[in-house]
Amino acid sequence: MLIEIICTGDEVLTGKIVNTNFSYMAQKLEDFGLSVTSGTIVGDDREELLAAFRLSGERADAVIVNGGLGPTVDDLSQEIAARAAGVDLVLNEGWLERMVDFFRRRNRVMSENNRKQAMLPSIAEVLDNPIGTACGFALDIGKARFFFTPGVPRELRRMLEEQIIPRLLARSGVSTAIHLKRFHSYGLGESHVDQLLTGVEELVPDGSVKLGFRTHYPQIETKLTIRGADMDDIARKLAPVEEEVRKRLGNFILGEDDQTLEGVVLAALAERDGTLAVVETFTAGQIAGRIAHLAGAEKVFRRGLVARDPAEIAATLGLDGGLISGELSREAAEAVAQAMRAETDASHALAVLIEVDDGPDRIDFGGSIHLAIATGEGVESRRSRIYGGRDWVRLGAVELGLDCLRRYLQGLSITERADFERV
Amino acid sequence: MLIEIICTGDEVLTGKIVNTNFSYMAQKLEDFGLSVTSGTIVGDDREELLAAFRLSGERADAVIVNGGLGPTVDDLSQEIAARAAGVDLVLNEGWLERMVDFFRRRNRVMSENNRKQAMLPSIAEVLDNPIGTACGFALDIGKARFFFTPGVPRELRRMLEEQIIPRLLARSGVSTAIHLKRFHSYGLGESHVDQLLTGVEELVPDGSVKLGFRTHYPQIETKLTIRGADMDDIARKLAPVEEEVRKRLGNFILGEDDQTLEGVVLAALAERDGTLAVVETFTAGQIAGRIAHLAGAEKVFRRGLVARDPAEIAATLGLDGGLISGELSREAAEAVAQAMRAETDASHALAVLIEVDDGPDRIDFGGSIHLAIATGEGVESRRSRIYGGRDWVRLGAVELGLDCLRRYLQGLSITERADFERV
Repeated sequence: MLIEIICTGDEVLTGKIVNTNFSYMAQKLEDFGLSVTSGTIVGDDREELLAAFRLSGERADAVIVNGGLGPTVDDLSQEIAARAAGVDLVLNEGWLERMVDFFRRRNRVMSENNRKQAMLPSIAEVLDNPIGTACGFALDIGKARFFFTPGVPRELRRMLEEQIIPRLLARSGVSTAIHLKRFHSYGLGESHVDQLLTGVEELVPDGSVKLGFRTHYPQIETKLTIRGADMDDIARKLAPVEEEVRKRLGNFILGEDDQTLEGVVLAALAERDGTLAVVETFTAGQIAGRIAHLAGAEKVFRRGLVARDPAEIAATLGLDGGLISGELSREAAEAVAQAMRAETDASHALAVLIEVDDGPDRIDFGGSIHLAIATGEGVESRRSRIYGGRDWVRLGAVELGLDCLRRYLQGLSITERADFERV
Repeated sequence: MLIEIICTGDEVLTGKIVNTNFSYMAQKLEDFGLSVTSGTIVGDDREELLAAFRLSGERADAVIVNGGLGPTVDDLSQEIAARAAGVDLVLNEGWLERMVDFFRRRNRVMSENNRKQAMLPSIAEVLDNPIGTACGFALDIGKARFFFTPGVPRELRRMLEEQIIPRLLARSGVSTAIHLKRFHSYGLGESHVDQLLTGVEELVPDGSVKLGFRTHYPQIETKLTIRGADMDDIARKLAPVEEEVRKRLGNFILGEDDQTLEGVVLAALAERDGTLAVVETFTAGQIAGRIAHLAGAEKVFRRGLVARDPAEIAATLGLDGGLISGELSREAAEAVAQAMRAETDASHALAVLIEVDDGPDRIDFGGSIHLAIATGEGVESRRSRIYGGRDWVRLGAVELGLDCLRRYLQGLSITERADFERV
């Protein structure tokens, strides 16, 4: 099935906003085994929209149009959809009532121009939008089924998942259920993960498992798309593959599905009534910044200390300045973590001390990381070196710090080597 | 002049990467008074690429193609460009030498498949890429001039600015110079800025000044595009408009052109040999995280303290716990800033204490912010309330903290009200 996406709106066309809706839709369709053939970006212009709708209507089997369903004069999707389909716009009484009710429940009065949002092409099938006033709809233009969606990301997301993907799957003739299983890892590059997982798809010989990856430095997301007759069939197929992926990626898996690294760390601490203190240098508060604001962190995050000068850290924690004033070391990081723990009475203290290279911010700019975790049971530490420029080193060190804490809390080794570090 | 953009690559088409190159190009062209008529996204597929090139060649006057100039088998831009133009691919000896030299200077050996990057359509005009091995080029397909650019963002940016925009301006028949002047502000909404600046374009009656905005919460960027016969003419036209914008937006302007809020604060502190200490709660280290990692901050950023519990802050700074244990207040923030300054001996101490609402993370979720700045001369403080959900409140408070510091360092009032706060 040939699927196209048309993104509309001057804000997208002029680059005023980055088109994250496109990548979201394409990615989500891929997750369900549906591929996008091409994408088009057009502004709020009647003739351009009409030409784009007609062209896609000739080429594709299904077209998703995003944006242009709002109440203002530059929202043109319903009007041009009707023109392209050769039908009239008519007031949809049902949607009008929904909108009146929507405003009433929020103690607001519906303005007259919102009525425009209930004007739909006469042949339109309504696609429900339970969280907004923009009415989604579907109709045929040329040989393609068109699905019109709102530009507001959360409204689009819900409509795509609940209304459009089931219809696309039905039209594609795939009378099966589908499921996406995700693993998040840190420390292995994409090609390494790919190589480690060679052949896992073949554990289910009928080809119903598809493996894919998505990199967002420094994490890699590994995705398994599984098709089956129903959810039981999927669970049966997934079980051995899932187990094998966990075995092969092992300790590098930091979370699955909707879990985040910071969420896993926070939950592991909360579960044991633990508390956390963090000492940072070049990461500049960004380790604390990943975890301390989360709901629930108010009970767990005890204290963060940030300084660029190790001597400032030594002074703050009452340490012998000589220990961390010269070349940093694992021992220095251990002393800092232990002193921070003693000072704050936190159950866990993480220290991430970094010496950054001198010189310009280039691809060969690096940093030496000295990391330690102190608890009532003792202290563990590691050394690491990351290259790639200031941002790369800083982002890598933030992730390394959080991931070592995750490993420690899960009883795993904190010194397993990451692909992008140099010793 | 009708300009189209074609973005190529499976990674973009499948949503694996967000298409920031498109928004960058569209925005940059707008800055030079050039508009994009439509955008197309196609994968690494010979027939799809050919169809896209031919279609745009019929419709547009100029087309920018992004991506597909790399050394691997799925990089197809040169091949399909040659097919669409009906010419052969030939080895460009000059570019091959450039590549050999490029690798030699980096002590690396060029691999055989890089030769492919020097195969260009016979009629191609080379567009220089001084920082990479992908050779840009231009040629005619149909009635349009096509410009082929690399997918690597920094290579694209340089080629667009240095090679392509001058050619587009020449083709558009605009024999004038153009200049973009930018102002960054915090605290005024886009519609408010728009209203405050009503009529500034008319200070230059010949229509050569164009006003535009770009919002990236919580900052607004105000852009003036000025055309003139040459840079002297532009400077003459810009002067009165620039002065008027500065007058009307006043203290809300936090920086101009490439300046950032954190950079302005850092420079203002460095200039007076100042040092900074920061105390944070719900902003979770993200105020420190904006400034402490910057080059030069190692001399300025003295210490950051993060805690979610005000009692922890009181204990750390040796303050009377009663002062900040109950309802927070400006007085509590003042006491914290003063104690932090005394403790760290920094010239400037910023304290941003936040009480977040109870309840779910919705649009009506808010936070009360108590902010103080202490120096050798005394202490100033303000109270603020921001709604909009956890992220919105946190991001707003980070910006408010840094902007109050900027105002203080510039001798301006720190209590001027922002549009999105409620009292």
